Amino acid sequence: MSDSLSRAELNRRKLAHAQVSPRGALEHLSQRELTLLESRGAGGLHPLFRKCALAVLASGIEIDDAKLLFDTFSDFEIRIDREPFGVRLEVWNAPATAFVDGRMIEGVREHLFSVLRDIVYVATEVEAGRLELSTPAAITDAVFSILRNGRIFDARSPTNLVVCWGGHSISREEYVYTKRVGYELGLRGLDVATGCGPGAMKGPMKGAAIGHAKQRLTSGRYVGITEPGIIAAEPPNPIVNKLVILPDIEKRLEAFVRVGHGFVIFPGGVGTTEEILYLLGILLEPDNEDQPMPVIFTGPQSARSYFERIDRFIGTTLGSEALRRYRIIYDDAEAVARALVDGVEDVRTHRSRTDDAFAYNWRLRIPEGFQRPFEPTHEAMAALELRLDQPVHERAVNLRRAFSGLVAGNVKDSGIRAVEEHGPFRLRADRALMNAIEELLSSFAAEQRMKLEGEYRACYVIDERSS
Amino acid sequence: MSDSLSRAELNRRKLAHAQVSPRGALEHLSQRELTLLESRGAGGLHPLFRKCALAVLASGIEIDDAKLLFDTFSDFEIRIDREPFGVRLEVWNAPATAFVDGRMIEGVREHLFSVLRDIVYVATEVEAGRLELSTPAAITDAVFSILRNGRIFDARSPTNLVVCWGGHSISREEYVYTKRVGYELGLRGLDVATGCGPGAMKGPMKGAAIGHAKQRLTSGRYVGITEPGIIAAEPPNPIVNKLVILPDIEKRLEAFVRVGHGFVIFPGGVGTTEEILYLLGILLEPDNEDQPMPVIFTGPQSARSYFERIDRFIGTTLGSEALRRYRIIYDDAEAVARALVDGVEDVRTHRSRTDDAFAYNWRLRIPEGFQRPFEPTHEAMAALELRLDQPVHERAVNLRRAFSGLVAGNVKDSGIRAVEEHGPFRLRADRALMNAIEELLSSFAAEQRMKLEGEYRACYVIDERSS
Amino acid sequence: MSDSLSRAELNRRKLAHAQVSPRGALEHLSQRELTLLESRGAGGLHPLFRKCALAVLASGIEIDDAKLLFDTFSDFEIRIDREPFGVRLEVWNAPATAFVDGRMIEGVREHLFSVLRDIVYVATEVEAGRLELSTPAAITDAVFSILRNGRIFDARSPTNLVVCWGGHSISREEYVYTKRVGYELGLRGLDVATGCGPGAMKGPMKGAAIGHAKQRLTSGRYVGITEPGIIAAEPPNPIVNKLVILPDIEKRLEAFVRVGHGFVIFPGGVGTTEEILYLLGILLEPDNEDQPMPVIFTGPQSARSYFERIDRFIGTTLGSEALRRYRIIYDDAEAVARALVDGVEDVRTHRSRTDDAFAYNWRLRIPEGFQRPFEPTHEAMAALELRLDQPVHERAVNLRRAFSGLVAGNVKDSGIRAVEEHGPFRLRADRALMNAIEELLSSFAAEQRMKLEGEYRACYVIDERSS
Amino acid sequence: MSDSLSRAELNRRKLAHAQVSPRGALEHLSQRELTLLESRGAGGLHPLFRKCALAVLASGIEIDDAKLLFDTFSDFEIRIDREPFGVRLEVWNAPATAFVDGRMIEGVREHLFSVLRDIVYVATEVEAGRLELSTPAAITDAVFSILRNGRIFDARSPTNLVVCWGGHSISREEYVYTKRVGYELGLRGLDVATGCGPGAMKGPMKGAAIGHAKQRLTSGRYVGITEPGIIAAEPPNPIVNKLVILPDIEKRLEAFVRVGHGFVIFPGGVGTTEEILYLLGILLEPDNEDQPMPVIFTGPQSARSYFERIDRFIGTTLGSEALRRYRIIYDDAEAVARALVDGVEDVRTHRSRTDDAFAYNWRLRIPEGFQRPFEPTHEAMAALELRLDQPVHERAVNLRRAFSGLVAGNVKDSGIRAVEEHGPFRLRADRALMNAIEELLSSFAAEQRMKLEGEYRACYVIDERSS
Repeated sequence: MSDSLSRAELNRRKLAHAQVSPRGALEHLSQRELTLLESRGAGGLHPLFRKCALAVLASGIEIDDAKLLFDTFSDFEIRIDREPFGVRLEVWNAPATAFVDGRMIEGVREHLFSVLRDIVYVATEVEAGRLELSTPAAITDAVFSILRNGRIFDARSPTNLVVCWGGHSISREEYVYTKRVGYELGLRGLDVATGCGPGAMKGPMKGAAIGHAKQRLTSGRYVGITEPGIIAAEPPNPIVNKLVILPDIEKRLEAFVRVGHGFVIFPGGVGTTEEILYLLGILLEPDNEDQPMPVIFTGPQSARSYFERIDRFIGTTLGSEALRRYRIIYDDAEAVARALVDGVEDVRTHRSRTDDAFAYNWRLRIPEGFQRPFEPTHEAMAALELRLDQPVHERAVNLRRAFSGLVAGNVKDSGIRAVEEHGPFRLRADRALMNAIEELLSSFAAEQRMKLEGEYRACYVIDERSS
Repeated sequence: MSDSLSRAELNRRKLAHAQVSPRGALEHLSQRELTLLESRGAGGLHPLFRKCALAVLASGIEIDDAKLLFDTFSDFEIRIDREPFGVRLEVWNAPATAFVDGRMIEGVREHLFSVLRDIVYVATEVEAGRLELSTPAAITDAVFSILRNGRIFDARSPTNLVVCWGGHSISREEYVYTKRVGYELGLRGLDVATGCGPGAMKGPMKGAAIGHAKQRLTSGRYVGITEPGIIAAEPPNPIVNKLVILPDIEKRLEAFVRVGHGFVIFPGGVGTTEEILYLLGILLEPDNEDQPMPVIFTGPQSARSYFERIDRFIGTTLGSEALRRYRIIYDDAEAVARALVDGVEDVRTHRSRTDDAFAYNWRLRIPEGFQRPFEPTHEAMAALELRLDQPVHERAVNLRRAFSGLVAGNVKDSGIRAVEEHGPFRLRADRALMNAIEELLSSFAAEQRMKLEGEYRACYVIDERSS
Repeated sequence: MSDSLSRAELNRRKLAHAQVSPRGALEHLSQRELTLLESRGAGGLHPLFRKCALAVLASGIEIDDAKLLFDTFSDFEIRIDREPFGVRLEVWNAPATAFVDGRMIEGVREHLFSVLRDIVYVATEVEAGRLELSTPAAITDAVFSILRNGRIFDARSPTNLVVCWGGHSISREEYVYTKRVGYELGLRGLDVATGCGPGAMKGPMKGAAIGHAKQRLTSGRYVGITEPGIIAAEPPNPIVNKLVILPDIEKRLEAFVRVGHGFVIFPGGVGTTEEILYLLGILLEPDNEDQPMPVIFTGPQSARSYFERIDRFIGTTLGSEALRRYRIIYDDAEAVARALVDGVEDVRTHRSRTDDAFAYNWRLRIPEGFQRPFEPTHEAMAALELRLDQPVHERAVNLRRAFSGLVAGNVKDSGIRAVEEHGPFRLRADRALMNAIEELLSSFAAEQRMKLEGEYRACYVIDERSS
Repeated sequence: MSDSLSRAELNRRKLAHAQVSPRGALEHLSQRELTLLESRGAGGLHPLFRKCALAVLASGIEIDDAKLLFDTFSDFEIRIDREPFGVRLEVWNAPATAFVDGRMIEGVREHLFSVLRDIVYVATEVEAGRLELSTPAAITDAVFSILRNGRIFDARSPTNLVVCWGGHSISREEYVYTKRVGYELGLRGLDVATGCGPGAMKGPMKGAAIGHAKQRLTSGRYVGITEPGIIAAEPPNPIVNKLVILPDIEKRLEAFVRVGHGFVIFPGGVGTTEEILYLLGILLEPDNEDQPMPVIFTGPQSARSYFERIDRFIGTTLGSEALRRYRIIYDDAEAVARALVDGVEDVRTHRSRTDDAFAYNWRLRIPEGFQRPFEPTHEAMAALELRLDQPVHERAVNLRRAFSGLVAGNVKDSGIRAVEEHGPFRLRADRALMNAIEELLSSFAAEQRMKLEGEYRACYVIDERSS
C-alpha cells in the first residue's frame, strides 16, 4: 500500500485536470469567504490555500522534502467554483496519487475541504479579533475555537485520544511495530492523533483502523494535527478522518497537548525531539505537577540504543525530574496499550475531580515561551541561549526552538531555501549541552532518521558558548 | 396537546429548580464564551441569554404577551456550569410546561442550546467584524453565516423549504386547515419554516410531521426563525428541530426570504401583514423581476372575506403589479401543496441556470430600506412617511415599518411598556392609505386576530397627513 | 388529515395502474416463495395476498365494512415482478388514497411488503412444521417467530410498549382524548401498539408521534398487529412503522398480550369487549397471579357512563376479582401516562427477577381455550355455553368467542356474508349473562359504537338458556 | 497483528471463564430453539454449536489443523443463558486470543452469534422441509434462504462482491500481495468475500478495509462463507462482518458462485484447486456460456511458476475451453482491480438484461454432480472415476471431489482421523490425469502450500487406472 516513487517519476505522474464535487455533507461558503479565497494579492488567501491543497494531494507520495514538492508541482493550480449545490473545486496538474482511476480518493477530498475550512476560519474569525492573541489565555481560546470548528470534539467518548509521535523516516521493523501498537490501542477503543505524515505517524493509524474494525467501532477518530509549514513535508494519510490545520507550529503543539489524553513516542529524529522537549518542558512546569498524563516511549528491541540515548539526552538537558514523567517499554505493544488505558482513566478521574473539560485540557499551564511563535531565521537561531544555568523550563523552551529550527532546515520549504542561501544554522551552547546535542544529532544522521532518501547534509553547525 | 393556561395559574406552574445535562451531541464552549455569557454588566450577554432562554422554556404556554411573561417569571434564573463532558445549564423558577415529570423536554433542551449557540456566535463573530455590517452585502453575508452556524444548510435536498406565515391568533377552523396544508406539504417531501409560535406557525409543522412520518422521511426540517424581540411572544414549538435566533427583525425577515423556496400565507394579523409587505416589496424590486417565487395565500372558505380584504389592501397600497406575485387558494390543501411542488421546481431550475446557491438566494436584491433596523419609538413611528406619491418600494418599506411598530405595541415587551408609558403610537398617512390601514386593522380587531385572549386595546392612532 | 369518503365516491377514486419499486431496504424473495405467491389455485397464496394488499391500500379510506371494500374493488389486481434489484409490485385499480400525486405513500409501501413478508413466512415456515401447532407451547413459539421475523423485537428499550385498545367508531371528543393520551405516552418515551385501524387505534399513534418528535425520539415504534380477517375492516394507518400480520385472531391476541408491557383501553364496541374479556380472562388464570400488568381504562368525562356499564358488565360476568386488575381514569392523560410509566417499571423488575424476556412474556400462561382458533359459524355461535356455573376462565373463553363472532358479523367480510345468508347469529346464555350482554350491546348500538356510518342492524339474537 | 502461537503455548492460553453479553442488536431465541441448542443427545444441536463456536473463538490462532484444535481444547464448553434482554453466552476454557483484557473482541462475538443464528436456522427451517432438498432448484432455494437469513443481501450496491480464493499457507510476499490487491479493490468500492481463514483469505480483507477507510466507505462488506467442516481449520478473521455458515461444502461453494460478481484467485493448495475446478466446471456447462464472470488468477512475480503449473493442469484436465474463462495477471494489483471493476459492470449489465437478481445469480446452472454432497470416505475416494474419456463437466465433478477429499485429509478433523486410522486415501486415474495430479500435488508439498507448520505427510496415494 506504500507508494514510494522515484522523484524522476513525479513529474510524469500528474493529472492534467479534475473536478472535485462535494459528496455527502455539502460545503457552503459565503460570498466574502469566496472572495478571500480567490484573492491572490498581498494578504489574499489563495497562495496559502494552493500550497496546503497541494500538500494534501501529495498524500501517497513518499517524500519529505517540501521544496522538491513545490518545485516539481510549480504548475499546480486550484480554483473554487460556486455551484448551486455548494462549492466545487477544480485542480490542474495535481499529483496523480490522490486519484483512483481519475476520481479523487474520498479521504483526500475531505482533507481538501478541511484545509479550505480551516484557512477560511482562521482568516475570518481569529484574524477579526487579532489583538486577542495577545494573552496566553486568548491563544488557548483560539486553539480551542479552531479545533471545535474542525469538529474534533464531536465524538462521544472524550478521554480516549492517544497522541502518537515519532519519525517519518524509520526502519521497516520500527514501522511494523508502530502498527502493532496502533492495533492494540484500537482493540481497546482508543483513538489516535498524529502529525499525520508517513512512518510513525501512519503506522498507528493503520493498526488502529484494523483494531477498530475488529471491535466494530465505526466512529474511531484518526486525528491529524498539522500546520501550513509542515503539511507539505508530512502530507496527511487518507485514513486521517479529522484533519485540522492550525496556523503555526506552536498552536499545533498546544493542540496536541490539550486534546491528547496520553502520549506514545516512537523513535524519530529532530521533529520528535522537538515534541519531547515541548511536552516534558510543560509537564515540568510546577503548576502542572498534579496533572496525570501517561507518556510512553516505545519501540522494538532494536530501538533500545536509540531510547537509551534519548533518555541520556533528557537527563542531561532537563534533569532527573523529567525522567519521572515517562516510561520506556520495549517490544510489547499490549503492555503499551494497557498502560495507556490505565493512564487515560487517571486523566478522566482527574478531569472529573477538577471540573476540567474531558475534551480539552484547559487547566494545563503552558509557559508563554512555548506559545509564542518562533521564526527560525539564522539570526534567531544564533541568538538562542542554550545554557545549563537557566531555569529548566526556560532551557526547555530554547532547546525546543533550536530543534524546531532544525526541522525547518531539514524538511520545510522555507528552511531549506534559507539554508541553501545562507549556509547552515549556527547554534551556540554550553559545552555539556553542545555535546549532548551533537551526540544525538550524529546518531540520528547515522541511523538515517533525518531524511527519507538520499544523502543527509547537516543544516547546522554547533559551537560552544563563550561564557 | 394544547396547553392553554389561565394566567392565574402561570404563577403556580413553576419548577423550582432543574439541571439540564447535554444528551447526544456535546456542547463545548471556550473560556471566553463562558465569561461573556456569564457577564451581567453593560454589554454582557447574560440578560439577553436569560430572556431568550425564558422564552424558549415558555413553549407550551399559550400566551402572546411578552411583558406578562417576563413579569410573571421575574424570578426566573439560569446559570451555565462547565462540566467535564461539556456544558450544563441550571434553571430556577422555570415554566413547568417545559418539563415532563421533572425532566426537560428534549426539543426544548435543544432550543436552549440553540439560543446559547446563536447568542454567543453573534456576539463573538459578527460583532468582531461589526463595521462589516455597514454594507448591504455584508449584512447578507452575516445572515448567511448565522444560518450556517445554526446548521440550517445541512440537509441534502436543498430546494424544499416552504415558509409558512400566518397569525398566532386564529380560529380553530383556520388552525385545522393549517395542519392539513402542512400534512399535504409533508406528504410531498417539503419541509417547513415558520416564525415558530402558536397558531399558523405550529399547525403546518404538526401536519408536516405526520406527513413525513407516513413517508418515512426521518430528516424532515422544521425550521424556526426568530429574533430576541419576538421569541417571547412566539415561543418555539418543540417540534422545531432547527431553531435559529437572528439578531433583529430585519435580519430575521431576510433569512426567511433567502432560505425559503416558496411561501404559504395563512390568515393573520399585523405581523403577517408586515411579512406580506416585506415579501411583496422585495419581489416588486425590478432586479428581482425574473426570480421565480411561489407565493400562495390560503385558508378555509370562512377566510374568504379576510383574503378579499388583504387583496384590496395590497391593491391599494402596492398596486396591481403586486397582485400578480401571489395566488389565493381556498380550502384545498392538496392544491396548495401541488402549487408549491411545482413552484419550488421552478426555483430549482432558475438557481441552476443562474448558478445561484440552492440553499441561499444570494441573487435576490433586498432594498437597503428593508435591511436597516427600524426601532419603533413613538418618534420614529410619527416620522414615517406613508404617501401614495412615493415609489412603490419606498412605500412598502415604510408600511412594513409601520406594521412592525404595531407588532411591537401588541406583543413585544419593549413595545407594550412604551405604549403604557407614552400612549398609543401616532401614525400619519395620505387619506387613501389611512383608510386602507384603518379598514384592515379594524377588521383584525373585530375578528380577534390581534390577541390570543382578553380584550384588545389599540396601540395606535392614525391621522391623515396634512400635505 | 382524515379522508372520510362518501361510498359513492369510492368507485371513482381508483388508480388505474401503478408500479411500486422498493426504496431503501431491498426485498429479496426466493424462487419458491415467488411461485407460492403467484399461485392462485387451491392452497395458493395469491388470493390471501391480494386481499391483504387491498386492505393495506385502503388505508385512508374511512370504512369499516370489509365486504363493501371487496365488492367495490373487485377489479383490484396485484402482481409481483422479479427485478434485478429485488422485487417490484404492480397494482391495478387500487384505492387512490394510498398514493400522493401518483406515487404510493412510503408507509403504505412498507405495509405492502410487510404483508408479503408475513404471508410468505407463515406459509413456508410455520406451515412446514404444521403439526407443531398442536401444543400450547408450540403456538406460543410460532407467534414469537412471526413477530421476530417482523422485526418487532429490534428496538433497544424493550419494556416500553403500551397496547392501546378501543373502538374504531368513537366520538370526536373521545378521539381527541386518545391523541392526548398518546401524546403523553410519547413524551415519556413509551411506544404504542394497536390493532391499527381508525379511531382509538389511530389517535394514540398520532399523539405519540408528536410526543416522540418533541423528545427527538426518532426510533419510536408504532406497532400494528392484525390478521387477515380484520385487516380489511381496520386498515393500518401509515404511521404504523412495524406492521405484522398474524395468521388468525387468537394468535393476534396472544401477540398483544405477550409483547405489551401495559394496556390502555379506550371506549369501544364489541371488538374492544372481546379484547377486554381475553385480557382479563388470562390475568384471572391463577398461574398469572404474580404477573404485574398495568391496565388502565380511560376516556374523557363524557365516557363515564360507558365505563360504568363496562365495569358492571365485568363485575357480572367475570366477578369482583377481575375488577382488581384494572383502574379507570377519567380525563387525565398525564395521569394515564404516569400510571403506565410506573406499571412498565414493575413489569421490567418482574421480568428481571424471573429471568423472563423483556421483549416477550414467555411466562404468561394462556389457557388453551384462548389459543385455539374459534370459527364463528352459526352452529359454533349457537353451541357456545354461556353459563354462570362455569369456572370463571372458561366463561371468559366462551364470552370472548361470542364477542369475536359479533365482530365478524359486524365488520368482517366472511361474517357479513354469513349473516346476510343465514340471518343473525343466535346466542343462548343464562339469564343474568343474557341481560348483561343485552344491556351492553344495546348501549353500543345507541351510542353508535358498532359502525362508522349508516344505520346499524344487529347481527345477533340472544335468548335465555333453558338449563 | 498476526498471533502465531507455538502449539505448546496453546494449552496455556485459555481463558477459564467468560460471559458474552449482547451489544447492539439483541438476540432473541424461541423456547424451542433454546431447547434444540441445549440438546446434547443424538440429533441435538449442541455438539455442532460447540464445535463451530470453538472454531470462531480460535480466530487469531494461526493453526490449520482442526484435530489439534479440538484435542487441545477438549475441555472447552459453551452454554446459552436466557436473559431478560435476550441471550447470553457463557464459555469455559476458550482460546484467550479471542479476548482483549478479558473482554471478547466484538467481531468474534458477532461471529459467535452468526454461528448460533445459522445453526438454528438450518436446523429448524431447512430441516423442517428436508425433502425439499431433493431437487436442484430446492437446494438453490435453500442456499438463498440461508444467505438471506444471514443478512448477506442487505447492502445497497449489489454487484460489487469479489470472491477472493487462495491458500491459507502462503509466503510472506504472496500475503503482502493479497493485501495490495484487496486495497486496490477497496479503493474502487468493491467488497470482498472469502472462505475466511488466514493467508489469502485474510489479506484481501485487511487491504480492502484500509481502501474503504480511505474512501470513507463505512458499509464495506467483508463476507466470510464457511461450513462446519472447514471452519475449525480456517477460523474467520474478526474483520469479517458478515459471516454465514452453510450446512456443507457443496452449499458453501454454491453460495460463493451465486453471490460473487467476480473472482480473484491467489496461489493456494488443494483447497484452492478444488475451488478452481468447481468454478471452471460450472462455467464450462453449456447453459452458462453467456454468463459473464470475471476470473483473475494473480500473484507476485515469484508466483509465476505456480500459475504456469496450474494453467497446465487446467489445460490437461479441463481442456483449452477452460483456459478462456480466466486471465492471469502478475504483480499488478491495480490492473487486477480495474479488471474486476470492468467485469462486474458486465455482470450488472447482463443481469439487468436477463432480469436476474443482482444479489444472487439464479440463472447460473450448476450441474447436479456439483450440488450433491460428497462424503470423502476411503471407499468413496477409491470409487471416483477420473477418466479422460468422460464429458468434461463430469470429469470436473469427480476431480473436484478428489481434491475435496484431499482437503479433508489435510486439515479437517474427520479427515485427519480417518487417514490416521485407515491410512492414506487411494485414488485411481487415467495415466495423463494421474501425472497431472501428481505433478501438482508434489509441487504444493515442495512449496509448503499444504500446511502452515510442521512436516507435511501426504494423505493420499494415486495409481493408474487399469482400464
